[in-house]
Amino acid sequence: MSSYRAPVRDMQFILHEVQDAESMLASMPGTQEVSRDLMDAVLEGAARVCEDLLAPMNRSGDEEGCHFEGGLVRTPAGFRDAYEAYAEGGWIGLTGEPKYGGQGMPKVLAVLMEEMVMAANASFALYPILSAGACLTLSRHGSEELKQTYLPRLYSGEWSGTMCLTEPHAGTDLGMLKTRAEPEGDAYRVTGTKIFITGGEHDLCENIIHLVLARLPGAPEGPKGISLFVVPRTLPASGEANGVSCGAIEHKMGIRASATCVMNFDNARAYLVGEPNKGLAYMFTMMNYERLSIGLQGLGLAEHSYQIAAAYARERLQGRAGNGVANPAGPADPILVHPDVRRMLLTVRADVEAGRALAVYVAAQLDRAHFHEDAGVRERAGKLVAFLTPVAKAAFSDRGFEGCVLAQQVLGGHGYVREWGLEQNVRDARIAQIYEGTNGVQALDLAGRKLVRDREGLLEVLVEEIEAFLAAWQGEASADWLVAPLRSVLGNVQEVSQRLRKRGEENADEIGAASVPYLRLVTLMLYGFMWARMVQAAERALADGASDISYYDAKLKTARFFVDRVMPGVSALVTEIEAGAASLMAMDADQF
Amino acid sequence: MSSYRAPVRDMQFILHEVQDAESMLASMPGTQEVSRDLMDAVLEGAARVCEDLLAPMNRSGDEEGCHFEGGLVRTPAGFRDAYEAYAEGGWIGLTGEPKYGGQGMPKVLAVLMEEMVMAANASFALYPILSAGACLTLSRHGSEELKQTYLPRLYSGEWSGTMCLTEPHAGTDLGMLKTRAEPEGDAYRVTGTKIFITGGEHDLCENIIHLVLARLPGAPEGPKGISLFVVPRTLPASGEANGVSCGAIEHKMGIRASATCVMNFDNARAYLVGEPNKGLAYMFTMMNYERLSIGLQGLGLAEHSYQIAAAYARERLQGRAGNGVANPAGPADPILVHPDVRRMLLTVRADVEAGRALAVYVAAQLDRAHFHEDAGVRERAGKLVAFLTPVAKAAFSDRGFEGCVLAQQVLGGHGYVREWGLEQNVRDARIAQIYEGTNGVQALDLAGRKLVRDREGLLEVLVEEIEAFLAAWQGEASADWLVAPLRSVLGNVQEVSQRLRKRGEENADEIGAASVPYLRLVTLMLYGFMWARMVQAAERALADGASDISYYDAKLKTARFFVDRVMPGVSALVTEIEAGAASLMAMDADQF
Repeated sequence: MSSYRAPVRDMQFILHEVQDAESMLASMPGTQEVSRDLMDAVLEGAARVCEDLLAPMNRSGDEEGCHFEGGLVRTPAGFRDAYEAYAEGGWIGLTGEPKYGGQGMPKVLAVLMEEMVMAANASFALYPILSAGACLTLSRHGSEELKQTYLPRLYSGEWSGTMCLTEPHAGTDLGMLKTRAEPEGDAYRVTGTKIFITGGEHDLCENIIHLVLARLPGAPEGPKGISLFVVPRTLPASGEANGVSCGAIEHKMGIRASATCVMNFDNARAYLVGEPNKGLAYMFTMMNYERLSIGLQGLGLAEHSYQIAAAYARERLQGRAGNGVANPAGPADPILVHPDVRRMLLTVRADVEAGRALAVYVAAQLDRAHFHEDAGVRERAGKLVAFLTPVAKAAFSDRGFEGCVLAQQVLGGHGYVREWGLEQNVRDARIAQIYEGTNGVQALDLAGRKLVRDREGLLEVLVEEIEAFLAAWQGEASADWLVAPLRSVLGNVQEVSQRLRKRGEENADEIGAASVPYLRLVTLMLYGFMWARMVQAAERALADGASDISYYDAKLKTARFFVDRVMPGVSALVTEIEAGAASLMAMDADQF
Repeated sequence: MSSYRAPVRDMQFILHEVQDAESMLASMPGTQEVSRDLMDAVLEGAARVCEDLLAPMNRSGDEEGCHFEGGLVRTPAGFRDAYEAYAEGGWIGLTGEPKYGGQGMPKVLAVLMEEMVMAANASFALYPILSAGACLTLSRHGSEELKQTYLPRLYSGEWSGTMCLTEPHAGTDLGMLKTRAEPEGDAYRVTGTKIFITGGEHDLCENIIHLVLARLPGAPEGPKGISLFVVPRTLPASGEANGVSCGAIEHKMGIRASATCVMNFDNARAYLVGEPNKGLAYMFTMMNYERLSIGLQGLGLAEHSYQIAAAYARERLQGRAGNGVANPAGPADPILVHPDVRRMLLTVRADVEAGRALAVYVAAQLDRAHFHEDAGVRERAGKLVAFLTPVAKAAFSDRGFEGCVLAQQVLGGHGYVREWGLEQNVRDARIAQIYEGTNGVQALDLAGRKLVRDREGLLEVLVEEIEAFLAAWQGEASADWLVAPLRSVLGNVQEVSQRLRKRGEENADEIGAASVPYLRLVTLMLYGFMWARMVQAAERALADGASDISYYDAKLKTARFFVDRVMPGVSALVTEIEAGAASLMAMDADQF
């Protein structure tokens, strides 16, 4: 009963009308040939794959789950064929380096493709998206030899990639990891156990390339003594099995068709990536890429859930409208007449649309940071990426999960049983708040490294962007209902940030105490900013005599809902931040 | 790895020190003999059953689920024996009429027992708790003959009871139900299909007694033409099978050991309860009883989740405290040193403790409404019950679900896998927001029937209670940090309610538009009231020289956290309510 329809029109609205990606891409070497037509063709192609190939296997994959038999993992029925078709379409190497067989597409396009894949089948999506992340790390930090050996086959999907960080006693605190690497000839031998390894073992393709964090002999303790290695399951040169085995797979709340593995490395042949002891920094290249994608898991699943819930609310007849019969021909009115059903649907929609606009905005900064000729532009874009990545990951996944829960609520009891797919979306979305750094860790990154300890003025760059937009828009705007609250929350963020910088420098607990509400406050500012950009684009289209008036009108109405119903959350967040750490730290450990 | 420990000490604190249940019970015929010692013995007995018998089967029951074979339902391994032991302990008839074999215990005690059972094993809990609800309906509305036939065996657990309301096309809107009853001799024949019937079929005991809503020939259309019938699976007099069969069981997100059945009634022998066409009103007796219990499902699971998360946070070593090393002997500090981990834990705890206090407060009103000799007292208590029941059901289950999610987050990836039990708690808690009337329906009941259309002054009685408490407390209070915000939110509720009454009378959509934030606002007021009562009790105990100073000190600190971090939500809710219906109703149906 899957009913996912890729929101191509909404994606085009963001990409072309709000972001004007074509102009940006035309101005940068490497992306000059990515025209609007090409982008539309890519979006349409991705939509076909997601709707026709991946969405139909989503429920069956969840029900069957992965099988672990004799050290091997068998993915659910249909996954292997789908993976082959997906790989043949060139989707894994979409943003890959053309020199090694990648498609060289910009991130603004990739985020939209990733949203679709995550929405259609989050379990499936993790296999190719992790490969793409591994490719990025190798592409940025690997030697020419490593790139030539691995990138073409990873891009093509013949091989897949993983990311081996966590150990039983070392999750958030990677500095504690114990896996060790010993030099042997021109390579290394890695020994240790990693857990929670997505796609650590599976039957989708012929080889699996692990990116593994480990310690070299005599390396400094803690995070500064960690190196990054490539550890293939099968050695490419000889075709011999390497010392890599899967010890077990996890039984999880959701993403049940994605194999989450315990991986044992036993004297496994390994190749150093880049320089010794810089592994954690290299891995962050991948983490930052993944973090935006993982946010999109929550966002995509919320979009998918919205579609199901909105269709249900239009069709389910139950009760009558408060102000009289709306459907006199039927035995009852569709539940969409009820204000509270609309509140739930609009909450999801306002969040998803703002989130998608923010994803494309962050992706545009990633593209600028990578492709732009001007070092100043690259640096400025990099600052925006640094500040916005933790916000995007946490906001998309937190609000995406809540959106899935709200959409499930619209269906009542029918949302709790398997048939409509909403309970699976809730279970699948939940992990995005946890992995790739929990959302608490994202908030701490934002409030700590990106604000209190920041010496580059990251927040200031963002504030300039918003102020520049508002200044440019003032002239043409009739939208004071939106501009005034946006200016107000911008002011809130600046004041709160200033005070938090001071308090946080004096007492580190103040950072952690404020971090989550601070991230939420910044999110409301950013979503308000995105709604302002969307309203501007919609008003322009209407002024230019667009024919689909209802489409743009819905944008204006959703923005109004956001201002009326979501932005008021600002005041509570400011109060919570200002409350400080005292009431959190007062409890003794044994009083918990 | 179940680690549920019934919070008996906290329950005693509420029951004896905050509510002084013993004095209330001593003043009413029927409960005079329920002493503090007896209550403590009941709590301890319930704790033993829940910790030793039910909690250990919680995970295995979830993993195995119910089996449907040839029209019969087999519950998971161990459930049948546990049910027998539970029944033999007299727990099913705990609040039952002594005349028919019930224990005659007050509701203040039953809510605490129910919290424990829900926390230990929510799937199991539903079987006996639904029986108890069916008993209550029969006890209040059934004939002497029906009571004699059914109550003793339902109380004893030899038979179990269900509640058959929903049909495929009639959920929230029961007025649309189609199941029909035809008179035959001194009884009736019922034909129709019911869905989502908890415990509709199972193997726990020898007979199942269905309470079924159906229409008599010539009955008025809509909700006023619904009658209530007793339909036993096996006819008690003859031992013959009745025309009752289970067509299927649902595959659900959670409560997988509870059989949710499609029930087919085919010319089944049925007995009318009370008068014709009053079935819906009778069923509401049961619904109101169940609603509080269902709220306790969310609350109990949040308590259980809190226990696991707090223990994990004390033991999991990862990273170092922001202000320097806290555990120099270990490789890292326990994650409980981090302010954001504390924020998550304290949020759950502050909600659970306030919710438990409110459950006992509502239960005390239910006891007064039932047992008190003075009609004026009964009426006043009944008004409080009417206003507070939808709030308690929705608040306990919404905040309970969020609490389970927060506790899961404390464990990171370990919370997402099966081992620690938290992902099951999230799945099991989710249903409590949906069944027994979705929380949206609870909010509509509160804002509509209990506020805008209320002519009995329900809110006013509650406001009087809070004001009386504050007036009495003023003298002894040093707690202005708590009293001032409580007074402020009390003022908010009064103002908002007055305006909502006006707006809602003019435009019914205003009720639905405000309903959910209104219920949340009232919840913050009530939780603030409950924290004030708990602080008062804790301060008294400390002033009286209590020996366990740390215990009471933790109450004061948790209250402070609640005021600092949870109550500030008031401002956003007020703004949201005042925003009105316009931005919700502006969207056309085809724009969704």
